[in-house]
Amino acid sequence: MILGGGFGGLSAAKTLANKPVRVTLLDRTNHHLFQPLLYQVATAGLNPADIAQPIRHILRDAGNITVVLAEVSSIDPSSKRLLTPQGRSFTYDYLIVAAGARHSYFGHEQWEGNAPGLKTLEDALELRRRILGAFETAEMAETEELRRSAQTFVIVGAGPTGVEMAGAIAELARHALAADFRNIDARKTQVILLDAAPRILPTFAEDLSASALKQLRHMGVDVRTNKTVKELNTEGVTIDGEFIPSRTVVWAAGNAASPLARELGAATDRAGRVLVNPDLSVPNHPEIYAIGDMASFTHQTGTTLPGVSPVAIQMGRRAGQNILAQIDRRPTRPFKYFDKGSMATIGRNRAVVDLKFARFGGFLAWLSWLFVHLIFLIGLRNKTLVFLEWAWAYFTYSHGARLIYGAFRPKVPPGSA
Amino acid sequence: MILGGGFGGLSAAKTLANKPVRVTLLDRTNHHLFQPLLYQVATAGLNPADIAQPIRHILRDAGNITVVLAEVSSIDPSSKRLLTPQGRSFTYDYLIVAAGARHSYFGHEQWEGNAPGLKTLEDALELRRRILGAFETAEMAETEELRRSAQTFVIVGAGPTGVEMAGAIAELARHALAADFRNIDARKTQVILLDAAPRILPTFAEDLSASALKQLRHMGVDVRTNKTVKELNTEGVTIDGEFIPSRTVVWAAGNAASPLARELGAATDRAGRVLVNPDLSVPNHPEIYAIGDMASFTHQTGTTLPGVSPVAIQMGRRAGQNILAQIDRRPTRPFKYFDKGSMATIGRNRAVVDLKFARFGGFLAWLSWLFVHLIFLIGLRNKTLVFLEWAWAYFTYSHGARLIYGAFRPKVPPGSA
Repeated sequence: MILGGGFGGLSAAKTLANKPVRVTLLDRTNHHLFQPLLYQVATAGLNPADIAQPIRHILRDAGNITVVLAEVSSIDPSSKRLLTPQGRSFTYDYLIVAAGARHSYFGHEQWEGNAPGLKTLEDALELRRRILGAFETAEMAETEELRRSAQTFVIVGAGPTGVEMAGAIAELARHALAADFRNIDARKTQVILLDAAPRILPTFAEDLSASALKQLRHMGVDVRTNKTVKELNTEGVTIDGEFIPSRTVVWAAGNAASPLARELGAATDRAGRVLVNPDLSVPNHPEIYAIGDMASFTHQTGTTLPGVSPVAIQMGRRAGQNILAQIDRRPTRPFKYFDKGSMATIGRNRAVVDLKFARFGGFLAWLSWLFVHLIFLIGLRNKTLVFLEWAWAYFTYSHGARLIYGAFRPKVPPGSA
Repeated sequence: MILGGGFGGLSAAKTLANKPVRVTLLDRTNHHLFQPLLYQVATAGLNPADIAQPIRHILRDAGNITVVLAEVSSIDPSSKRLLTPQGRSFTYDYLIVAAGARHSYFGHEQWEGNAPGLKTLEDALELRRRILGAFETAEMAETEELRRSAQTFVIVGAGPTGVEMAGAIAELARHALAADFRNIDARKTQVILLDAAPRILPTFAEDLSASALKQLRHMGVDVRTNKTVKELNTEGVTIDGEFIPSRTVVWAAGNAASPLARELGAATDRAGRVLVNPDLSVPNHPEIYAIGDMASFTHQTGTTLPGVSPVAIQMGRRAGQNILAQIDRRPTRPFKYFDKGSMATIGRNRAVVDLKFARFGGFLAWLSWLFVHLIFLIGLRNKTLVFLEWAWAYFTYSHGARLIYGAFRPKVPPGSA
């Protein structure tokens, strides 16, 4: 049984496809999401369907895999059962837990309503609604204060997601929206990127951080490092004594593993991830594997592997292979991560790439980023559509998916969560 | 001032663009919606962004038009003011009311929760969630009764929208979903199309109704005419003594004009539409025009013009021109509808077309339908994307946008609204 249809769970399922085992994959959504491009849905560059595929459809040729749309609320390792909120239960012989992570507000969970994060399609559509709605609020603003605070966007956390969001909002304001408004100048939008660390993209090499910083500043993004958020409400963000009035705050600062990790009876790290064995199994439970954002794996390098898709994909493959080994009564093998490098995009013609053998920023990095993301996107249809959307946006400077779904609330009453 | 950015309001705005008048267009959404293709969003064939465009963007070159995202809750013709629920007011010299229609449940408004209609993007996404969710429920069903009721879709109302929905659901089940499920045979899905009238597509000529009926039956749709819905709940639909167990009911049976129509102090028809003067102005209010689905216009032919986009577009143009005439102190002109014909699609290679000079069904009708809808879709980008989605779906028999957003609730408790 596989819990979760993200990068890790899907990779495990593909490893077990058409093997002599019966597999059930449970997910609470019907789709696998290509999270690296989620920020483009949030900034109206792509459609939800461009970066998501029904899990059922991806696995349709694997006759031994059943996909079930269900939420799992708890795991009982002693009786080998999963429970849904509706009281339904599923039993397993082997279990791969790949339920991912949510945002962490480091004890300030009340900030979530004012500073949503970006993990699911719903998150992305909510952020899109807020970002586009902020320009509408600015256009109708009766005071200069309200206009300014509506046109100020704060992104908390300068990892890849924060950097990508900051760059994308700056471009949306400068290009796609520039001609659409009558009362405001969309180009005067302020984008502020905050991080508590001394430099942005802290997992990248220092020269790439510096390159990304230079590229962001060139786009007009106000990057502030060594800044911790002290308070956050509907009016804005307080950092180290300074108050920034802002109606739209994006949280890209921290992750916490799914609470299901705590139910496995094993030790967890600060982010709630299970401290897994070298073969990815959970201590004292050789029949359970924890992978991806739910696993804390330090055996290989001494540092914990980051919560990125290549790690999850490779872990899924190893967990699947180890279960096949257990069934065949062969010994399991330790997980070895093969690091192909990392990349982050900043905007039009701008990115940074860290391969193991080379590091570079700028146009070539951006082209590499485009190429790699198109290759890994699942499905020829999505590859084609995303390529066309990107080509269109590149040549017209326009964003196609500028729709606000659901109710638009022009004024949030002060003080409400 | 124009109220509404649908076909009528947008056409009026374009007529007034760059003329010596100051225009404000109010809409509660930020987009103009190409409603004729909304059923394809509901059946996962198209993305929301493919058939919607930001109103602001469409009118960006008209410097005299301001677009405001706001809901209007009431109209006060005596003080010439519009009021929003937030207490904001807008004053006007001339007003074009083009706020459209919602579904009518003919006094059974409590049915709406179990049988949603199809007017907005949110409606379409809700229907998509229910339709795709029904197959998920069937796949997990523990009894044959539940499976059968989850795989039974009832469409109430056999006008163009009902016919299009019935055909699209039948195709979705037969082709796009056929290989994705393990426990159910998606091809055994039952689609039932009901209408109280003696024939489907009652506004079309009789031979085209017969042709559409034959084409639908060939696709396996169970068409039942002369049937009135007596009762409707989460378990199914009761018609004339017979109970049809069904988890998914689509309402395509009736329209009621926006309740704002009643605030204009004029007589309204059974569907709540304003009985307008020949020049589309509202009786006793020469400064207010009601158009599109809000206007009841019988002067030309003796029969009321239907609530379709060509009527709204032509009315918008006339209302805009009449306001320009009033400002120039010229007499207004009566509205004349030029009927170019009507068409409805049924499915792959199937449609009916009624031009004034020719009537036909089948493949040629379907090609004409495709062609006309691509031409009228706003924006080269949307035309291109929709063309590609259609081409892709045609050759692969697959639907690209099979995403369920928001929470999926596998079982609806019996009896709840």
